[in-house]
Amino acid sequence: MTALAGLPHVLEQLDNDREAALARLLDFLRIPSISTDPAHRGDVRAAAAWLSNALQELGFESRVHDTPGHPMVVARSQPGGTRTLLFYGHYDVQPVDPLELWHRPPFDPVIEQTADGAVIRGRGASDDKGQLMTFIEAFRAWKAVHGTLPPDLILLFEGEEESGSPSLRPFLTAHADALRASLALICDTGMYSDGRPAITTQLRGLVGEEVVVRGADRDLHSGSFGGLAANPVMVLAQALGALKDARGQVTLPGFYDGVEELDPALRRDWDALGFDAARFLGRVGLETPIGETGRTPLEMVWARPTAEINGIAGGYAGQGFKTVLPAEARAKVSFRLTGQQDPQAIRAAFRDHVRRFVPADCRVDFQEHGASPASVMDISDPAFAAARQALTEEWGRDAAFIGAGGSIPVAGDFQQLLGMDSMLIGFGRDDDRIHSPNEKYDVQSFEKGARSWARILAALR
Amino acid sequence: MTALAGLPHVLEQLDNDREAALARLLDFLRIPSISTDPAHRGDVRAAAAWLSNALQELGFESRVHDTPGHPMVVARSQPGGTRTLLFYGHYDVQPVDPLELWHRPPFDPVIEQTADGAVIRGRGASDDKGQLMTFIEAFRAWKAVHGTLPPDLILLFEGEEESGSPSLRPFLTAHADALRASLALICDTGMYSDGRPAITTQLRGLVGEEVVVRGADRDLHSGSFGGLAANPVMVLAQALGALKDARGQVTLPGFYDGVEELDPALRRDWDALGFDAARFLGRVGLETPIGETGRTPLEMVWARPTAEINGIAGGYAGQGFKTVLPAEARAKVSFRLTGQQDPQAIRAAFRDHVRRFVPADCRVDFQEHGASPASVMDISDPAFAAARQALTEEWGRDAAFIGAGGSIPVAGDFQQLLGMDSMLIGFGRDDDRIHSPNEKYDVQSFEKGARSWARILAALR
Repeated sequence: MTALAGLPHVLEQLDNDREAALARLLDFLRIPSISTDPAHRGDVRAAAAWLSNALQELGFESRVHDTPGHPMVVARSQPGGTRTLLFYGHYDVQPVDPLELWHRPPFDPVIEQTADGAVIRGRGASDDKGQLMTFIEAFRAWKAVHGTLPPDLILLFEGEEESGSPSLRPFLTAHADALRASLALICDTGMYSDGRPAITTQLRGLVGEEVVVRGADRDLHSGSFGGLAANPVMVLAQALGALKDARGQVTLPGFYDGVEELDPALRRDWDALGFDAARFLGRVGLETPIGETGRTPLEMVWARPTAEINGIAGGYAGQGFKTVLPAEARAKVSFRLTGQQDPQAIRAAFRDHVRRFVPADCRVDFQEHGASPASVMDISDPAFAAARQALTEEWGRDAAFIGAGGSIPVAGDFQQLLGMDSMLIGFGRDDDRIHSPNEKYDVQSFEKGARSWARILAALR
Repeated sequence: MTALAGLPHVLEQLDNDREAALARLLDFLRIPSISTDPAHRGDVRAAAAWLSNALQELGFESRVHDTPGHPMVVARSQPGGTRTLLFYGHYDVQPVDPLELWHRPPFDPVIEQTADGAVIRGRGASDDKGQLMTFIEAFRAWKAVHGTLPPDLILLFEGEEESGSPSLRPFLTAHADALRASLALICDTGMYSDGRPAITTQLRGLVGEEVVVRGADRDLHSGSFGGLAANPVMVLAQALGALKDARGQVTLPGFYDGVEELDPALRRDWDALGFDAARFLGRVGLETPIGETGRTPLEMVWARPTAEINGIAGGYAGQGFKTVLPAEARAKVSFRLTGQQDPQAIRAAFRDHVRRFVPADCRVDFQEHGASPASVMDISDPAFAAARQALTEEWGRDAAFIGAGGSIPVAGDFQQLLGMDSMLIGFGRDDDRIHSPNEKYDVQSFEKGARSWARILAALR
């Protein structure tokens, strides 16, 4: 049976196996694989083992590879295809705080019926365990129908995507021959709004930095020392507050080097999407786009770089009041990059900027938290048209080529280290609350996602 | 026996009773009376009861008065003097975090032998339990020698000094007739350096503010929303960073209204103190005065106003990295005031300043944490000369008239509400680590402090 002839049977098999597929995902979601928190190191490893075991049972040759950080899972199917495809996902998840805002324990997932349909509720449901299980379920159904797995697949799963992927580039370099394929398929992105399927063709990059400013060797009484001694929180506020000007532009020298204006054809496509910024923001209690003067909202999030403070802490911020000059202040800062911006140049410019604010008697230390350039895919590869067609057929709506404001550094790494383009297809929704309390994934995303992969496989195998 | 004739006996009695006096203080220090933390409400009350019981046993008529906040303890001795004196101290203490920096439990005090002599180690040892016990021990020794307490004393102890004293002004107003004296004696200040006794004749005021900036109704993914949605931490950093300019001056409009240049005579006295800023800062790991251009270090801390961020928090600042746009950011900010600066005008200017930085889609809320103007005492009252003489005799060094950078709002409240001047005499040292981990009080301060009060009482009774 050819791939195309088998497709109706594979889709039917997916429909018949729905309940069991959901049960498998819930099982996976129960593992609290928070990669950024050292306390969960064992849980991250457990999630890798769970995944590798599941793939072995399915007939993949699969292995958990140790790294200096969290493990990689690499699996492959039997040879025999015309073109090797690499599927990528990540099995680690974001931290869950503030825990008190969750309506139920983040690692005790359930299927909930909501006004908008059934959802899978729990940390990682959408980002990225639910997403990566869509293609695994498609492989499972293929095997049930054809008796063998789809040929010439490489699967790569990492456990550090939410913590800067420190081991990814070394691993890709060390295993380049084993991992090189003709195209990568990455399932870690979203639909366009209202159930319109999408292929993400450009992604912002990311530079993450942690900065600590230290002053006295203890917290000081602000009466005894205020006005005389340096205040690290004030120093940090001044340095970070000066990162953006009144027009919303980042002030670092050279920051916009390599930023490209949007291609006119793509701008017309994006304009045609009819993006409703007020509605998009309204879902999170906001209303007004606040970015650079003179840019459309979609440009702001997909095609313009930004600087953000992700966290800050220093001194006494608990109940009541404590009149101290804090001994230190710390912040996490990230930059989203577009076009050809150079992550290392931006990191250096940021550090120089902060140092200019640090007075005598304060010291500053920086810690790197990941760096990846932006990625722009070559959409003239016919696989893009084929996948767009498959998605359109499954969802009954024209699939869109869109951008993404988040970085998926692996796409850039695949390009740089393996010379391989990526097709980014995912089924997340804007209201999935990824990285926030009460994360969910629509059951429809999960089920039609698996069916979408079955169609794409049929077109590309 | 006259007061002066009894003095040698009172001093001898204090010397003979040293061990028991220290034991009493340690007992008092074991009560974790942290007024700013609601969890310690019962402990604050227990400290008030401990104090009132001790005074009753000593022969004072003493009572614990409820307030909407923490209690007041008011005691009085029998009539018969020529001039009523009011002694003031506070029995509440600062929070203890960061707890991990303490070398021993903060509420398990001990006497430690150090290279600089014996110290009493524990939260509140210096600020203010150890200090207030110096005059109580002087009263105790007086009673042992004279058979009666010193006449016409009023004692007032509050339990909210470290949390903005919200109940003090209402209490003084309601009990004005019972509390009015000819002079107040406040024991909550320090010596000048190197064991030189001092009377503090001017104090900075304080305005405390808590500010919270809120954006979206949840933490947002900084990839999906960064560049489009408001970031409360960035808003707060920009607002607070703009509070001071490059010359160290506060930028709020009207901030310096009412700030007075230092009296030339006092400036000469202060210059003669030979203040060594590098040495003062060196004790806390610093070196270089960082305040306003063109001001001496003593002016910076005693006679110039300042703005400080005491604490800040927002987003994820724990281990690793979390790429969120935080839903909210909060900070505690305080202003130290001098001369005739108006606390309420400065509070209003601060709030107006912050509001100018808050964009559409963010909301800002403020909470008041105390306000007190600066206090400048009239040192022509002969009691100042008498006390200066008594201190000089006890310590064998010329007592100094100095300023204090911290606020002791009660001195201003006594002036405004009871028409009563204050003499501020205390025995704290610059290295007492008040408000910081490992607070201590020198045993010498405690013992010679009590002897100092015995001498002052003899001169003023």
